[in-house]
Amino acid sequence: MALVVQKYGGSSVADASCIKRVAQRIVATKKAGNDVVVIVSAMGDTTDELLDLAEQVSPLPPGRELDMLLTSGERISMALLAMAIANLGHEARSFTGSQAGVITDSTHGKARIIDVTPGRIQEAIDQGHIAIVAGFQGVSQDTKDITTLGRGGSDTTAVALAAALNADVCEIYTDVDGIFTADPRIVPAAQQIPRISYDEMMEMAACGAKILHLRCVEYARRFNLPIHVRSSFSTKEGTWVVSDPYTEGTEMEQPIISGVAHDRSEAKITVVGVPDKVGEAATIFKTLAEAEINIDMIVQNVSAAATGRTDISFTLPTADSQTALTSLKKIQPRIGFESLLFDDQIGKVSLIGAGMRSHPGVTATFFAALADAGVNIEMISTSEIRISVIVEQDGVDAAVAAAHRAFDLDADQVEAVVYGGSGR
Amino acid sequence: MALVVQKYGGSSVADASCIKRVAQRIVATKKAGNDVVVIVSAMGDTTDELLDLAEQVSPLPPGRELDMLLTSGERISMALLAMAIANLGHEARSFTGSQAGVITDSTHGKARIIDVTPGRIQEAIDQGHIAIVAGFQGVSQDTKDITTLGRGGSDTTAVALAAALNADVCEIYTDVDGIFTADPRIVPAAQQIPRISYDEMMEMAACGAKILHLRCVEYARRFNLPIHVRSSFSTKEGTWVVSDPYTEGTEMEQPIISGVAHDRSEAKITVVGVPDKVGEAATIFKTLAEAEINIDMIVQNVSAAATGRTDISFTLPTADSQTALTSLKKIQPRIGFESLLFDDQIGKVSLIGAGMRSHPGVTATFFAALADAGVNIEMISTSEIRISVIVEQDGVDAAVAAAHRAFDLDADQVEAVVYGGSGR
Repeated sequence: MALVVQKYGGSSVADASCIKRVAQRIVATKKAGNDVVVIVSAMGDTTDELLDLAEQVSPLPPGRELDMLLTSGERISMALLAMAIANLGHEARSFTGSQAGVITDSTHGKARIIDVTPGRIQEAIDQGHIAIVAGFQGVSQDTKDITTLGRGGSDTTAVALAAALNADVCEIYTDVDGIFTADPRIVPAAQQIPRISYDEMMEMAACGAKILHLRCVEYARRFNLPIHVRSSFSTKEGTWVVSDPYTEGTEMEQPIISGVAHDRSEAKITVVGVPDKVGEAATIFKTLAEAEINIDMIVQNVSAAATGRTDISFTLPTADSQTALTSLKKIQPRIGFESLLFDDQIGKVSLIGAGMRSHPGVTATFFAALADAGVNIEMISTSEIRISVIVEQDGVDAAVAAAHRAFDLDADQVEAVVYGGSGR
Repeated sequence: MALVVQKYGGSSVADASCIKRVAQRIVATKKAGNDVVVIVSAMGDTTDELLDLAEQVSPLPPGRELDMLLTSGERISMALLAMAIANLGHEARSFTGSQAGVITDSTHGKARIIDVTPGRIQEAIDQGHIAIVAGFQGVSQDTKDITTLGRGGSDTTAVALAAALNADVCEIYTDVDGIFTADPRIVPAAQQIPRISYDEMMEMAACGAKILHLRCVEYARRFNLPIHVRSSFSTKEGTWVVSDPYTEGTEMEQPIISGVAHDRSEAKITVVGVPDKVGEAATIFKTLAEAEINIDMIVQNVSAAATGRTDISFTLPTADSQTALTSLKKIQPRIGFESLLFDDQIGKVSLIGAGMRSHPGVTATFFAALADAGVNIEMISTSEIRISVIVEQDGVDAAVAAAHRAFDLDADQVEAVVYGGSGR
């Protein structure tokens, strides 16, 4: 008997009929001989509706109270789901994050899980019940206040609970079939990836692939917990996220590149004419760090000997741009840089693949593909298993398609070349 | 410095602007130098909407899950109220029933409070915060599951918490000015009652006065906690419910009758031709008790010597009629009664007044008034401070108006005669 943890997002439980359909799927898993723990998000637009209510009452609601408000969303969906399961003749018990033992720090709105003590969930499993747990929420260790985990929180709840319960698999249900080699809306020939490593998945999540959140993959990696990303609208196998996808009894050959990710949510700021003295760059990034801005890529030009000045460019979430520009303006007199340039019409295109470790030609092939597609590269950043470039936003689609093709990821090629006709 | 517990019902927090108005009232109470604890119900129709959702998912939802679902309603209203207060520059903290230490038994849907351990509320008060507590909900002592208190639950939460905190007063905010001598929709000359005893208020609640629920008054009486029923739309004094309303520094003379209550929610069943043998009545009422039906009034005719048979009539909530009739049909062969009569076109009219203890003529005056109004009495029941009669439903309004007039409760008379021109 396996212990299966399943997570259903808001679109899977958007209304009563969706909830009944999900209930049938859960009961089918139970009937197949598994113990089942389900993590559920709030129904459809509930969270937005609650945020709207909060806004009507207060322009800047306290985090503690906003968390109290938002967590009512999962309370509704989980109770309804438990009812729907009971209606099918199976025992289900719903539990809040607090009841499920999801212990967090006290950072309201983006709390981090610091412990999971799932005594009540284990008890429910031992009694043969299906446990339904509210995603996205926990209780703070210090203050015993209700907290929420922020973006991607329900996925993180699922993985954390699965790890604490020593589950065999954590199934993340979504509205697509799994993780693809690129966004199918941009690359119609994109392929579903059958298996991918934690490291690659983390890079993809960090580079704009939205299906799994970075924190959830980090958590799964730490506990070596297999994640199965799959569609709640079919019973097809989805994408397995595991530690070593190419040695665990698969006949697949490792592709050089697993996927092409893109991200249009960043902007670029250039600090022009920074005096080329020790410590000036440090002052700039210390200022940005104090403003709690996450910097992504950084490029510093070689100093022009004639002027003794250099330019520093960096990318950051577009949403943080205003704060960043204001902070930098304040230190302009002290640093003595000349001006600030701002560009939010950029996009990031990233190649991710553990295979590139052993294939030195990847960068050359990538850049050649972009050049052939007429896309200019503005910035470059690399890790051991990733190459990212910043291009103008209008060039993102062409860049993604060109890279996808250049690395033989297009559908017909994949079947023939990379996966050796395994047929998955 | 006084500790004031305030309870606001669903209509007082129906939308964002209502919530902001209530927040201002709460802050005004705090600014006047009081510590404030607020109990709040779910917004407007939230509970009905949640019940509707449950119905869409399951025809017979498990009580545990229904309670989990419904308690999200107060979670929303209390968080929004805390935000609105914060917006006015005061610190507020919202607490679920469980966090507030409302410990109940495990009877989902109508749990009884068995203990209140308001450590976190006391702590919030001690820190100068305004505590906002979810009404209607608690946590079961045995299973640690979320429970709801059933009808009138938020009032009960307010009184129980006020008692546990040793509050100076529990203010129950509603959409009318207080308790009236009769329903003003039936008797336009009805007067607001300035002060009333727990005993009288309990009789009024039991006889159909809907403003305070019986359990809440029982609880207040046990802890001798003053309740102040008042309007959330004005700052006028409302009705004080206290142990002895006429000696606590008031100049008011005790009226003979405090009020006239009525109730149209009961039906009458008559068991015709019950063999006049020992134990037959007991069997009938044991059967009804086992079906969990609350009987109100009972009348047994004198046995007709010729037939050796008698008729037994009783009243019960109309909603329970079908269950009662079915249960009785089942025992008909065993008891051998002749038939069952059912009448849901009845109404109960009750006179309540501690003063009737020392005024023996009350019953005669009451019955004469009903006779003059042409209303026939079908059944009679009395307590030390109450007389109730069952009349045909069409006669209820006339009976209430006649009784109100007969005991000098009409507005102009009250000012002149009973309250001696105290002007309240």
